[in-house]
Amino acid sequence: MARIVKKFGGTSVADIEKIQAVARRAKAEVDAGNQVALVVSAMAGVTNQLVAYVHDISRLYDAREYDSVVASGEQVTAGLTAMAIQELGVPSRSWLGWQISVHTDDAHGKARIESIDSDELIRRMEQGEVPVVAGFQGIGSNSRITTLGRGGSDTSAVALAAALKADRCDIHTDVDGVYTTDPRIVAKARKLDKITYEEMLEMASLGAKVLQTRSVELAMKHNVRLQVLSSFTDEPGTLVVNEDEIVEQELVSGIAYSRDEAKITLTRVSDKPGVAAGLFGPLADASINVDMIVQNVSADGKTTDITFTVTKSDLERAVATLEERQSEVGFGDILSDPNVVKVSVIGVGMRSHAGIAQRMFQALAEKGINIQVISTSEIKVSVLISEEYTELALRSLHTAYGLDAE
Amino acid sequence: MARIVKKFGGTSVADIEKIQAVARRAKAEVDAGNQVALVVSAMAGVTNQLVAYVHDISRLYDAREYDSVVASGEQVTAGLTAMAIQELGVPSRSWLGWQISVHTDDAHGKARIESIDSDELIRRMEQGEVPVVAGFQGIGSNSRITTLGRGGSDTSAVALAAALKADRCDIHTDVDGVYTTDPRIVAKARKLDKITYEEMLEMASLGAKVLQTRSVELAMKHNVRLQVLSSFTDEPGTLVVNEDEIVEQELVSGIAYSRDEAKITLTRVSDKPGVAAGLFGPLADASINVDMIVQNVSADGKTTDITFTVTKSDLERAVATLEERQSEVGFGDILSDPNVVKVSVIGVGMRSHAGIAQRMFQALAEKGINIQVISTSEIKVSVLISEEYTELALRSLHTAYGLDAE
Repeated sequence: MARIVKKFGGTSVADIEKIQAVARRAKAEVDAGNQVALVVSAMAGVTNQLVAYVHDISRLYDAREYDSVVASGEQVTAGLTAMAIQELGVPSRSWLGWQISVHTDDAHGKARIESIDSDELIRRMEQGEVPVVAGFQGIGSNSRITTLGRGGSDTSAVALAAALKADRCDIHTDVDGVYTTDPRIVAKARKLDKITYEEMLEMASLGAKVLQTRSVELAMKHNVRLQVLSSFTDEPGTLVVNEDEIVEQELVSGIAYSRDEAKITLTRVSDKPGVAAGLFGPLADASINVDMIVQNVSADGKTTDITFTVTKSDLERAVATLEERQSEVGFGDILSDPNVVKVSVIGVGMRSHAGIAQRMFQALAEKGINIQVISTSEIKVSVLISEEYTELALRSLHTAYGLDAE
Repeated sequence: MARIVKKFGGTSVADIEKIQAVARRAKAEVDAGNQVALVVSAMAGVTNQLVAYVHDISRLYDAREYDSVVASGEQVTAGLTAMAIQELGVPSRSWLGWQISVHTDDAHGKARIESIDSDELIRRMEQGEVPVVAGFQGIGSNSRITTLGRGGSDTSAVALAAALKADRCDIHTDVDGVYTTDPRIVAKARKLDKITYEEMLEMASLGAKVLQTRSVELAMKHNVRLQVLSSFTDEPGTLVVNEDEIVEQELVSGIAYSRDEAKITLTRVSDKPGVAAGLFGPLADASINVDMIVQNVSADGKTTDITFTVTKSDLERAVATLEERQSEVGFGDILSDPNVVKVSVIGVGMRSHAGIAQRMFQALAEKGINIQVISTSEIKVSVLISEEYTELALRSLHTAYGLDAE
């Protein structure tokens, strides 16, 4: 007997036939003697439609109302999936974030799960019932619905697996595993059998859409065995595991990219203590994540330029927030550019090998690609380049690091 | 200063432009110094889509999951409408059934409101905030979402108006008032300026789609001044009032029809005490409403035929429920016919005037329309006829009772 959490994304529950297929997978686990809980996303396209409604009404929308609107998509699939499972003769019940409860903080639109009340679910699973949990949502203080950010259902699944002390968390999706890079762009991309939590974390946070970043953080923290696999085949997927489970480690495991970045440059910023706090404090207060930051050396000793990136969806709010502070903080112009992409090479092997970054810079230089911003960590190197070079950069780097399939 | 509840149906919030128009109406009330709370339905078509999903998955679906699925439609409009009001500079907040809370019984799919916690809403309205309440939904025991049945948002609005002690409850809809009969079928139908609660109750329960039956019951019980009016014009609508407010009363105020009826006939039912209870008890347990009932005189003293109607959507479940009891209760065949329509003439004037029913039977006979079942009450006469005669019957009766517009 194993206890398994299985998460199905939007394309896996895109229509009634697919929902019925999900129900059959749940039944198969029950028939095999396992306890299973599902976490489902909204039907493909639904969340985008709801977000479009919100944007039609308001550009600077109220995040609490946004959450209430967009969380409805998962509510629909959770109920339909529970019915489809019942239809197969297996007891099932849907659970919304506020019903379980999935307690979160109040950062609407990107809330963090604080705790999950799992006793009732465990009791029901032990009796053979299949809980179908609406992903992506929780409940904050004041009984307001919160959502976890795009891809948040992955985090719901991992948090639930941790709370249920599940043996495994299967993330079913429309791809059959984690690839060395996006196979839609690089034909020679290869599926990985295993990848470390840390690499997966970097891949996810750097734009690989296969898993939400926080879900990997959570899995690593709670040691949840994670599998990324197809919703539509029975092939094994990619296991996300501890580093010591991987015998032969490549220098670089994968190459990720993110088109969600937008670049903001502030010119003639007063070069004095406290300026960075004055700039980034208000952005943090507005729940806007700042990613890459570069501050140039001050040429005249008085002013400097600061360049940083935010997600494209935060760009407008970030610019508006900064404009409000312009006189207070003191800077010249705000230049913004949404037409950038962040490309990253990732591998735990970097820790013990030099020259990984240099190989990247060289490969890009050979193709005439200008690097705008660089940032590095222990196991990755990221560069910001003009968006039009995305495909060229990915293919060049994939070859340069010897990742191409035979 | 007046406190007003305004309800907007699905066609009134069918797209973003219409939602913005609703928001402007709310602001206009606030600007006029009034306190206003809105109740909104799902965007037109959304609930039907959700119901279709449910039916695709299961014919004998779990009503608890059904409620959770279909309640999502109102969740979307409530959030969007609150945002649209905020966008006009007026504070607003959406409220789901479980957030207020709107406490109901556990009759999923057709739950009844038991109480509404209104203190928080009143406090906010007094501070100028506009609550936007998701109609159609409440919360039962065990934290499960309930829904009030199709058109239930009217009931939500009236119950809220009663709880808030509102001065008026405006039901905004896609027609501009209550008509003598369906103007899409009878071109000479007239809009009524006033109608009594009792007549409106009969009209609603007999198929006039303009208001849900229970909303009128509630309005009558709590003496809520009700107005049915257009969402798209500023014309006054039809006031639903006490009988003593109407000076000159017509014999017949209106003619309603319902295509939602389905006929079930049980043949060779044992003619002994307790049979009716044995038949209708299980239907009641399954929350299936039985409407018209006719029991023929027993020809042989041993068996009889019983004919009754249920709503079309309950037909399959009703037949299944009865089939389970066939041997126990004892009857021959179950014959079912969904192709029937119930036509009713309504008027408080009937109480004091004879011959109203006779005029109906005669008018139908003149057109060769066969009456299958008859039922009467103090202020209405209803007949069940073959569905194909619907339009002919309505036009004939509208003329026969002198209701045609000049």
